[in-house]
Amino acid sequence: MIIGLDHIGIAVSKLDEALHTYHEILGLKLEKIEVVENQHVRLAFLLAGEAKIELLEPTAAESAVAKFIDKKGEGLHHIALGVTNIEAFLGQLKKKGIALVDERPRVGAEGRKIAFLHPKNLRNVLIELVEC
Amino acid sequence: MIIGLDHIGIAVSKLDEALHTYHEILGLKLEKIEVVENQHVRLAFLLAGEAKIELLEPTAAESAVAKFIDKKGEGLHHIALGVTNIEAFLGQLKKKGIALVDERPRVGAEGRKIAFLHPKNLRNVLIELVEC
Repeated sequence: MIIGLDHIGIAVSKLDEALHTYHEILGLKLEKIEVVENQHVRLAFLLAGEAKIELLEPTAAESAVAKFIDKKGEGLHHIALGVTNIEAFLGQLKKKGIALVDERPRVGAEGRKIAFLHPKNLRNVLIELVEC
Repeated sequence: MIIGLDHIGIAVSKLDEALHTYHEILGLKLEKIEVVENQHVRLAFLLAGEAKIELLEPTAAESAVAKFIDKKGEGLHHIALGVTNIEAFLGQLKKKGIALVDERPRVGAEGRKIAFLHPKNLRNVLIELVEC
């Protein structure tokens, strides 16, 4: 079951420049900066009420975020929905014909269980599920 | 001052099909459907915790959302941040060099004061401010 919007992810080529805008100018509070090695990204989490804004900077050319930026430029990359029991929810979605990027959850930022759904059934939106 | 993430907007070509996926399959609760004549869009608001997901269907070819879909296809369109005193905040951002789409607030969905910031200073993200 979906609890709520957990975060939105923005692909950026230079994290420091993006932080200047989103943290210093817009005034969003910086929670932390984290490197997720297995996804080849450096992330900054900014607090925006109950939800967060995640700035994603690729750290290697093979990063999915690097490929996204090469193809489409910087910008909105994905939304993440907080869910209870991610395994059960993935199973329900699969039965209903939603294509999954991750058949089983893996460990994402902040050590939480995550899984991505494929954009093709979702009006072209990349959705991440995060177990809360 | 930013209070939090108010909603994320997704551009869709057929609202009914998008609702089938986001409401019936994903299980997000439908709050309401609204037509905003001056923006040529029909909107559905889905509840996602404190934030909302806004599905935007263009109702005319001159709609900014129709042009977005023609150019980029369906998908993530904008994020909206809830703010206090939108006029003062717009003034501060302008002084700091952020380009504004709307120099002054106008009336958006739900009768609230809104203004859009130009994506060019914001890592290519279209940001809407909504007075709360």
